[in-house]
Amino acid sequence: MNDLFLRTALGEKVERPPVWLMRQAGRILPQYRAIRNNLSGFKELVETPSLAAEVTIQPVDELGVDAAIIFSDILVIPEAMGLTYELIEKKGPWFPKTIQNKADIEKLEKGEVAAEKLKYVFDAVQITQKELNNRVPLIGFSGAPWTLLSYMIEGSGSKTFSKAKKFLYSEPQLAHLLLEKITDTVIAYLKLKINAGVDLVQIFDSWAGILSPEQYRTFALPYISKICNEIDEVPKTVFAKGAWFVLEDLGKLNCNVLGLDWNMTPQYNREIVGGQKVFQGNLDPCQLYATTDEIKKQTIKMLDSFGSKHIANLGHGVYPDTPLESVKCFVDTVKNYQYPLK
Amino acid sequence: MNDLFLRTALGEKVERPPVWLMRQAGRILPQYRAIRNNLSGFKELVETPSLAAEVTIQPVDELGVDAAIIFSDILVIPEAMGLTYELIEKKGPWFPKTIQNKADIEKLEKGEVAAEKLKYVFDAVQITQKELNNRVPLIGFSGAPWTLLSYMIEGSGSKTFSKAKKFLYSEPQLAHLLLEKITDTVIAYLKLKINAGVDLVQIFDSWAGILSPEQYRTFALPYISKICNEIDEVPKTVFAKGAWFVLEDLGKLNCNVLGLDWNMTPQYNREIVGGQKVFQGNLDPCQLYATTDEIKKQTIKMLDSFGSKHIANLGHGVYPDTPLESVKCFVDTVKNYQYPLK
Repeated sequence: MNDLFLRTALGEKVERPPVWLMRQAGRILPQYRAIRNNLSGFKELVETPSLAAEVTIQPVDELGVDAAIIFSDILVIPEAMGLTYELIEKKGPWFPKTIQNKADIEKLEKGEVAAEKLKYVFDAVQITQKELNNRVPLIGFSGAPWTLLSYMIEGSGSKTFSKAKKFLYSEPQLAHLLLEKITDTVIAYLKLKINAGVDLVQIFDSWAGILSPEQYRTFALPYISKICNEIDEVPKTVFAKGAWFVLEDLGKLNCNVLGLDWNMTPQYNREIVGGQKVFQGNLDPCQLYATTDEIKKQTIKMLDSFGSKHIANLGHGVYPDTPLESVKCFVDTVKNYQYPLK
Repeated sequence: MNDLFLRTALGEKVERPPVWLMRQAGRILPQYRAIRNNLSGFKELVETPSLAAEVTIQPVDELGVDAAIIFSDILVIPEAMGLTYELIEKKGPWFPKTIQNKADIEKLEKGEVAAEKLKYVFDAVQITQKELNNRVPLIGFSGAPWTLLSYMIEGSGSKTFSKAKKFLYSEPQLAHLLLEKITDTVIAYLKLKINAGVDLVQIFDSWAGILSPEQYRTFALPYISKICNEIDEVPKTVFAKGAWFVLEDLGKLNCNVLGLDWNMTPQYNREIVGGQKVFQGNLDPCQLYATTDEIKKQTIKMLDSFGSKHIANLGHGVYPDTPLESVKCFVDTVKNYQYPLK
């Protein structure tokens, strides 16, 4: 197996940084669009294990990335807990029912009972691992409890997530009750994914950046910390987007890798976090709209600035209208890079 | 005049922090809703000087804030340059025509020629000053060039502003050409506003936080810096939302006050910026959804943590569904606060 990604995640000294992209299995690939266009919707793809496996492997074939990430959605967890969602074309996720009060929270399923409903994900992992045939490691992922709560309260995406934040400020006890149930489910879900065969798990806290430092320390970090402490079967990555203001706390989590968005410089992060964690990121996804000469230059600049203990990626998911050639230029630039001999 | 706000902005020692709220003239006030409900839309209010003046003064009467801010919109500048916009209910601004190429940029008006079209704003300032009758200072404002460019390219609000960022990466020379024209217009506009009577100007860079540090230093800071250097008639505030990653640069701007969002702790900011600048902010607007006891407690905590050289405000505009009593609790808590005798 090309285990460069795992060796790097574990902090080993490697010859070059491994590379993959968030949302690499998606609209940037013509193969993906061909499959997607034949389906009723995104959820059909998520819920059909053979197809989810197929699109998971496409970027390994087409781009030559050093890791695959199982094609799925963070919102499968709220759904398994009892809140179904729809994906509205060009608008994003929408929950017909949201959490309004204590009774709504009490009605939710949690832990293994909830997680076991996501058999289609675990089946997809098994099929993917069989078909990947040890070419590259497979990443499993989950949304972080705060981000999942925010959708369960808000009912959709939002610029401010002010309903979700209002809930934290006005109903802190209920918020903790809900966060505990989500956390139990995330842990059970990740353990089942690991049993099914994923080689590393990544926790996405997509809406970390909209909380105040105090709220993040109260409502987000303790639950991520619990997840990290409960999962010890595989290496772990935490990507708390926009959470620069709690970087020191993130640096103390029991995880191997921290994801960085494009606002964060590696120098700043090293200074705050110290030498232990591996960093993942962080080219601005919009940088891939530049010319290939410029992409190459900026990618090398990024790799130089991280130096080592680095998994190359973008600072956020690749945008669906990014030219395929530009994505390939990014991947190839990393693969042709070599750490200077010391 | 209650000049506490201006004395504080100028760095003088004061007895307590002054207080006002971004978006204080707006839906939180029943008086505002009464006027707004009789009109065809938001733009009619912006473009009718007597009404704009009336809603500007409402929060001074109702809330007792220490400053008024002229009721207007940052998008009047793109419109004066030649791009009209509409405000779609519940969706936000929308530009039927956007900037696509060099010819589009060359067609735009700029500087005084553009700014003079905004006579309704200057009239509103004059009426407001007359009716305020020296009760409190009046703030004038403008969007920052990058934020204005982002709307002119994107055509609407966006979570990622990826079209606007794509423009910066793929057409850097055109971006600078457009930013220069916008900057000239902002300067002319602020000078005309100052002539009309505003006592301080604030520059809002609402989308600062989505650029990378390098992009911000290339496409945003130099233009804000130029504006600050050209305006010396009144004190200046710069609020670059989410721009924590260039705080040191912001600290060097030729301005008096820096606005802080709720992610930023005053301690961190002081450390990076040093002792010269006055800070404005930064309670999380969602904090006003808590109980009044909690609002009081958290407001005092914020005031204590700033200590001095502080203009109390939220870290972003007040949300329209915030209970009026909660806003009053925030304002009154600040007004009852006293700096400890030293």
